[in-house]
Amino acid sequence: MKAPFLSLVGAGPGDPELITLKAIKAINQADVILVDALANTCLLDYAPPSAKKVFVGKRFGCHALSQSEINTLIVEYAISHGRVVRLKGGDPFVFGRAHEEIAAVTEAGIGYEVIPGISSALAVPATLGIPPSCRGISESFWVCTGTTKEGTISADIRLAAQSTATIIILMAMSKLEAIMDIFIEMGKSDTPVAIIQDGTTHKQRSAIGTVKDITYRAQYEGLQNPAIIIIGNVVKLAGIEMGKQTKPDEVSAHLIEVIAPHMPKKD
Amino acid sequence: MKAPFLSLVGAGPGDPELITLKAIKAINQADVILVDALANTCLLDYAPPSAKKVFVGKRFGCHALSQSEINTLIVEYAISHGRVVRLKGGDPFVFGRAHEEIAAVTEAGIGYEVIPGISSALAVPATLGIPPSCRGISESFWVCTGTTKEGTISADIRLAAQSTATIIILMAMSKLEAIMDIFIEMGKSDTPVAIIQDGTTHKQRSAIGTVKDITYRAQYEGLQNPAIIIIGNVVKLAGIEMGKQTKPDEVSAHLIEVIAPHMPKKD
Repeated sequence: MKAPFLSLVGAGPGDPELITLKAIKAINQADVILVDALANTCLLDYAPPSAKKVFVGKRFGCHALSQSEINTLIVEYAISHGRVVRLKGGDPFVFGRAHEEIAAVTEAGIGYEVIPGISSALAVPATLGIPPSCRGISESFWVCTGTTKEGTISADIRLAAQSTATIIILMAMSKLEAIMDIFIEMGKSDTPVAIIQDGTTHKQRSAIGTVKDITYRAQYEGLQNPAIIIIGNVVKLAGIEMGKQTKPDEVSAHLIEVIAPHMPKKD
Repeated sequence: MKAPFLSLVGAGPGDPELITLKAIKAINQADVILVDALANTCLLDYAPPSAKKVFVGKRFGCHALSQSEINTLIVEYAISHGRVVRLKGGDPFVFGRAHEEIAAVTEAGIGYEVIPGISSALAVPATLGIPPSCRGISESFWVCTGTTKEGTISADIRLAAQSTATIIILMAMSKLEAIMDIFIEMGKSDTPVAIIQDGTTHKQRSAIGTVKDITYRAQYEGLQNPAIIIIGNVVKLAGIEMGKQTKPDEVSAHLIEVIAPHMPKKD
């Protein structure tokens, strides 16, 4: 019986090649994997066939579990099975509620690790060639979510709108118009905005406009969550569309060739 | 002769396992690799033996090239050799001046792609269990650098200091005291601060304190760049130290076993 342990693992933004070696290793050593709605399920191919896979997100047509139900499951599976991997879309620490899961295992005396993932906050704008900051255009970037604990728009957005920072907002499509109204109030009607849905996957779609017209453009394109909203003059740098999703088969076939020559000889 | 092409590749924060499959693939297809000071050089093992490796950072005891010299090299190598990989520490778009390199190749009619990396801004605090934001503690995070174009401290810091945002500052050790003075002015003397040098590598060292005492603590520990400064109540969540660096040999030996069974059969 293995010791109970939790690995909080970032699955990256969607493209299965945008996962780290460390994450693959953790998945491969899992006894149980609890999978989020936003994690690419083809990553489960790296799991041992004997590992138990549990879907906890609402996208799989099942009942979505509450955070407290997930916390309980993690502790129970760690005790009954050993190594639990919590596979989360993007980075587990970027609006991933990882700390509630850490608190649950810590209270139960169970060890944990955090394996960072490529955050969609940065990787998704990059698919259009948009950097979060750029010398001479913006000096910093500010990342917020549309879904605060209280369900309201964060007061931080008002401060961010006064700064030179690029503002990147996750999961905020239901509040798009209200957020743009804040920027209009701050005199930023003409600031460029990009919205990118399902970024880095083959379903990626996007719209580019300004604070005053992006709500209309997004409606016209039918854009909805999961989407990244990026507000700032860096959006003007948008270039060719990049980063199309690779098929999982291509990933593995190529990588074996890449990694094999560098592998130490076995006895 | 291959077509000229530039891949801007994120090498991650230091731990060689914190690199993506997509990045490894790009390195493996490179004809020339231009390597930054902060990129882990053991990643060059994934390059073909025939690939030309060029170090452009000042850490290798050589003359550090200027950005404009690097831009020229990229264009020249792409034309003379084909596929150029620009291997940058962290994520190429997070204060990586990638857009200056994109502008240079675009002007020369050369194609490019951006392969995101794990940014040290997020992964390094995670080694201490510190999330950039956390429900009920902070609603957003704001990432800036100590080295703006003008060499001054960004006025944005003053706005950020009024928000609930966690502030994450890269490469700012030479301005630590001046930055802390701004937070003291804003009445935030007791806000927790962590500083982590060489995060995710075996050289990692850190100090934790508050706005009013962190400068002294950092001096006492002798902390310097490359370091991440993280300011906000999320620092209170700091737990066990995680994410020790894996040896490159362990990476490859294990991964071959993980990836092989999922590989399509060859003819």
